[in-house]
Amino acid sequence: MSILVVGSVAIDSVKTPFGKREASLGGSATYFSIAASFFNKVNMIAVVGDDFPKRYIDLFRKRSIGIEGLRVASGKTFRWKGVYDYDLNTAHTIYTHLNVFKDFKPAVPPGLRRSKFLFLANIDPDLQYSVLKQMERPKLVACDSMNYWIENKRRQFEKILKRLDILLLNDAEARQLTGESSLMRAAKEIVARGPKAVVIKKGEHGVIFFSKRSHFIAPAYLLEDVYDPTGAGDTFAGGLIGYLSRARRINDSSIKKGIVYGSILASFAVEDFSVNRLSEISLADIMDRYRHFGKITKF
Amino acid sequence: MSILVVGSVAIDSVKTPFGKREASLGGSATYFSIAASFFNKVNMIAVVGDDFPKRYIDLFRKRSIGIEGLRVASGKTFRWKGVYDYDLNTAHTIYTHLNVFKDFKPAVPPGLRRSKFLFLANIDPDLQYSVLKQMERPKLVACDSMNYWIENKRRQFEKILKRLDILLLNDAEARQLTGESSLMRAAKEIVARGPKAVVIKKGEHGVIFFSKRSHFIAPAYLLEDVYDPTGAGDTFAGGLIGYLSRARRINDSSIKKGIVYGSILASFAVEDFSVNRLSEISLADIMDRYRHFGKITKF
Repeated sequence: MSILVVGSVAIDSVKTPFGKREASLGGSATYFSIAASFFNKVNMIAVVGDDFPKRYIDLFRKRSIGIEGLRVASGKTFRWKGVYDYDLNTAHTIYTHLNVFKDFKPAVPPGLRRSKFLFLANIDPDLQYSVLKQMERPKLVACDSMNYWIENKRRQFEKILKRLDILLLNDAEARQLTGESSLMRAAKEIVARGPKAVVIKKGEHGVIFFSKRSHFIAPAYLLEDVYDPTGAGDTFAGGLIGYLSRARRINDSSIKKGIVYGSILASFAVEDFSVNRLSEISLADIMDRYRHFGKITKF
Repeated sequence: MSILVVGSVAIDSVKTPFGKREASLGGSATYFSIAASFFNKVNMIAVVGDDFPKRYIDLFRKRSIGIEGLRVASGKTFRWKGVYDYDLNTAHTIYTHLNVFKDFKPAVPPGLRRSKFLFLANIDPDLQYSVLKQMERPKLVACDSMNYWIENKRRQFEKILKRLDILLLNDAEARQLTGESSLMRAAKEIVARGPKAVVIKKGEHGVIFFSKRSHFIAPAYLLEDVYDPTGAGDTFAGGLIGYLSRARRINDSSIKKGIVYGSILASFAVEDFSVNRLSEISLADIMDRYRHFGKITKF
């Protein structure tokens, strides 16, 4: 059952205390698709400019990522530049050049409207909603967002909330959305507002999952070195949704396993800049780390 | 096999965003002893002034905490006042009046020198070392410290390190001690310097355990409300050492279980001011939460 993601494909420049990379592949749809592609067929809805390097298109193709919905518009690709201090949980944006992304009107090709798994990456809730409306009864809809949309498009965002199976957001956003400083209260409040479940991402501190029936807390996989946290959240989502698209049943139990797969995928993503590490690992590497995670969290 | 703790017994005044308490029972030896007393006999080495309320002595007695080594000196009890903002991980000290604690020379009564489990709570490493020297072959020695001692008495602290089975410290202290920003590298480096194992406490974000043979990561028990984090670290240590004093064997496996018990005890401690919540729970409450913790971390 194939996966559809709508989000950004971007050219990122990133500096962390451990190095820097100019103009490399980034974007929420990119990280999500590569992570999910370990489990299943993924199709992306996104836009790039005519300056988008062919080698990145080749990378998508090599991973069997469907680019039928990746429009090439005349103009420049979305570009982002950010810096991280030693506190790798917070990115400081140097610039965001939306370029062709400014006029992005996501159109789902007819052949993809029946995709069973839909991930609405962090873009304008109006665009997320327009994609949701084009779909024909997806089996699972998950969504990410950010402080900017929660603040400026709250009504539209809350409309989407009611249609969601899983909302993913970080701890600060969960607090912002609900006005609750306790994450447990925030999680309960979010689930009361619509989504069947919420996953609160705490970066290096792990994840909290809450549904009406159960909850789950998981630490992040412990790493010796983190080089670049860019894309970790979308990679996490790709691992989670990718795993769920393969699971026999979607319930709290398979979501918990999916969350661990998401954490494992994210742990690889942050070990190098851009999608470098993600592109070189195999499913066996993922399985090894998944088993190791089980070992180091068992008591 | 009984437990001995050397540390402070104090009168704390604490303010958090959720309330405040003036002049209530505090101190590292207090929190540690109450937590460990759920598992075994604990004796404390500490000093209080002649102003120390009798009701607190009664509380120790009621929990069978041995106070043979609790000296009552003429003068005032150690007093601390602190404030927490919404970031409950950091205490801002308003004042520290050492009072009778200034001349504290811990003397271990002869009958307690063969205690098998020794916890050196966060006090001057010179005092910690003097206690260590008075003991006759303890089975397990654990120690806590703080940034001030690591900075100002590093040599003495490193001497103690070599004698430890378990060092407990928080994430900032682990980074300070080793100069490593990666906690995994810091943990490895600490274990290379002497202690058989290290437990890095990350407050609401859980715990990292490292020994030469294995490692373990655990989230903190998720709470709806945290009222006052004071004493959480010492309570954690009390749960850990208390459990270990009952375990058939001391190895990485029992230490992991002990860490979870420590987390559970700490989760109760922070649910009210001072030792209020800790004093009202039963072993059954602890077991319930321990089991629940297993449930919400399993995948």
